[in-house]
Amino acid sequence: MLREIDRNREGERKLHEVIKRIEPFDEGAAELARRHSDNLTKPPGSLGKLEEIAAQLAGMTGELWPELSRRAVIVMAGDHGVCEEGVSAFPPSVTPQMVLNFLNGGAAVNVLARQAGADVICVDIGVAAELEHPGLEPRKIVFGTRNMAKEPAMTREEAVAAINVGIAIAEEQYTRGVRMFATGEMGIGNTTASAALASVLAGLAPEASVGRGTGINEETRQHKVMVVKRAIDVNRPNPKDPIDVLAKVGGAEIAGLVGVILGAAALRCPVVIDGFISSAAALVASKLSPMAAAYMIASHLSNEQGHRKLMDVLGLPPVLHLDMRLGEGTGAVLAFHLIDASLRLMREMATFDSAGVSRG
Amino acid sequence: MLREIDRNREGERKLHEVIKRIEPFDEGAAELARRHSDNLTKPPGSLGKLEEIAAQLAGMTGELWPELSRRAVIVMAGDHGVCEEGVSAFPPSVTPQMVLNFLNGGAAVNVLARQAGADVICVDIGVAAELEHPGLEPRKIVFGTRNMAKEPAMTREEAVAAINVGIAIAEEQYTRGVRMFATGEMGIGNTTASAALASVLAGLAPEASVGRGTGINEETRQHKVMVVKRAIDVNRPNPKDPIDVLAKVGGAEIAGLVGVILGAAALRCPVVIDGFISSAAALVASKLSPMAAAYMIASHLSNEQGHRKLMDVLGLPPVLHLDMRLGEGTGAVLAFHLIDASLRLMREMATFDSAGVSRG
Repeated sequence: MLREIDRNREGERKLHEVIKRIEPFDEGAAELARRHSDNLTKPPGSLGKLEEIAAQLAGMTGELWPELSRRAVIVMAGDHGVCEEGVSAFPPSVTPQMVLNFLNGGAAVNVLARQAGADVICVDIGVAAELEHPGLEPRKIVFGTRNMAKEPAMTREEAVAAINVGIAIAEEQYTRGVRMFATGEMGIGNTTASAALASVLAGLAPEASVGRGTGINEETRQHKVMVVKRAIDVNRPNPKDPIDVLAKVGGAEIAGLVGVILGAAALRCPVVIDGFISSAAALVASKLSPMAAAYMIASHLSNEQGHRKLMDVLGLPPVLHLDMRLGEGTGAVLAFHLIDASLRLMREMATFDSAGVSRG
Repeated sequence: MLREIDRNREGERKLHEVIKRIEPFDEGAAELARRHSDNLTKPPGSLGKLEEIAAQLAGMTGELWPELSRRAVIVMAGDHGVCEEGVSAFPPSVTPQMVLNFLNGGAAVNVLARQAGADVICVDIGVAAELEHPGLEPRKIVFGTRNMAKEPAMTREEAVAAINVGIAIAEEQYTRGVRMFATGEMGIGNTTASAALASVLAGLAPEASVGRGTGINEETRQHKVMVVKRAIDVNRPNPKDPIDVLAKVGGAEIAGLVGVILGAAALRCPVVIDGFISSAAALVASKLSPMAAAYMIASHLSNEQGHRKLMDVLGLPPVLHLDMRLGEGTGAVLAFHLIDASLRLMREMATFDSAGVSRG
């Protein structure tokens, strides 16, 4: 027991060291980027968010037009004990099946990652099945979470360990040369956990945070609302303690993404946030480190109810409105093209002087 | 005079022949695309608009997953006599300067087109300056339009001739192998003409259709509202006759884009609609041929006031929300990445059966 506590302390100590390493946004570099942008042959500000993203990338990295061609989407996979309450349209067996689909390159995120020149890093952080594949990152912290409608989904130790897995993955990928991340996940039942996180940490009523996930009907959604309420009642997570909330009503793959986000921020790398589940992880990360929010880039507006409000709370207005609700990192990877566009415009456009164009 | 009328009749006859060639959307092919999409390893419909675009492309072309790798953005350039009313933040001399910038590859649309593998075809259809450049398509119909606040911007003959230039350009590019188009334009003063078109053809009050263009202040915007009202009062365009409206309060580059859209539709090629000015052209095209609307794909929501309502009228909800307001085709070219994503997903994703994934 004493050893358990020590391990826990060691885990939290490591986590807080990473959080302390997150540097503030470099406003000076962002301002230089904005000034360059105003010299390009276009009305000032007329490229909208593409100009803002360029300034944000400069402020994150401290470089004008950083080299971000090595990029990876980190797909964290985990199962959810709460599935035994009948909250999903798909059986939990789909989680390991989809992990193999990712590893064989056949899922949507694989296709979109190939298009965007991104690696897909698939991490078993909490799948309730034995998985073996040469491409898999085997970092299992739990064999599925416990049923949060009856007891805490994870212990605090497990949640911290899962965050630290995410940090380690970000660091390893950085060592391989990766300079931009996208968050992705797979886990039948994880919109239920994300809705619970959004309710506790962003103050959304379960009626507003619970959506249709992979495609349940309104009757099942009402049941899912009751399950989320029960999970919160049974566990009484402390909204002032994000790790407590993450452990009690979150999930291993969500905790892993919290780690990816914090790890990326500590490495001054942009991290593109996917849909509802990734945004719940971003919310936890921003509660653990408000400075981490400066390293996040929004991608798409999910069709999952509650996502828009969550992005409002995060201050990250989504740029892609495609009515997607798949997760996996699909929306985040699509946003890579827009980030590439932003950097290419800054690097390649003519200035008013170089092109001999009159200013307004 | 008699010869003038004959030429006019000849022009309108050619235009109406092209309109007659536009085939109805192939609902059978679209349905096959939807059925394929429902077998892919994802919850049905969870890729949202990417699935809809794939079905739309099948319905347009009659092929499942058409080959659209050869694509071009057609940038129509023209000047506007209404600039003498002081409606723009930039002087008209910027139109020819920017045309040279396009031809030298330094404008935003060039950068984004390189990223998306698209050719930039720059057409002088109405610039009020002599332009020479080996890369330019010299198809001048007017040396700038006349001041619509005092008289019709163009004659009916000029408007029809400019539409036919757009059709010819689409046909020539098709012969070169181009199978997907984006609309782009350059013309100081053209948000004023587009606002007038939106007011007459979509019934928007000038207060709602007139925006800040390249960056005028609210006082100048109010003046621009009055200029649009005066143009409509002076010319009394017939809302039932889209060519009459286009001639009296439109512009040569807008007419050229009407032709590109109609030409693309007649060739069963998708045409991606850029921002406010392109959408005004799309509105004219859809009034000339309601069937042409099926060949349009929405791109971005411009920051230009009036664009959202115009897209509502067209039934084309924009997918990119980037607060851009530059024109040139920049938003349309960005959407090429999403169209590519849509087709790659359909071609490359595993099915439930092939991947051994359980259905819900």
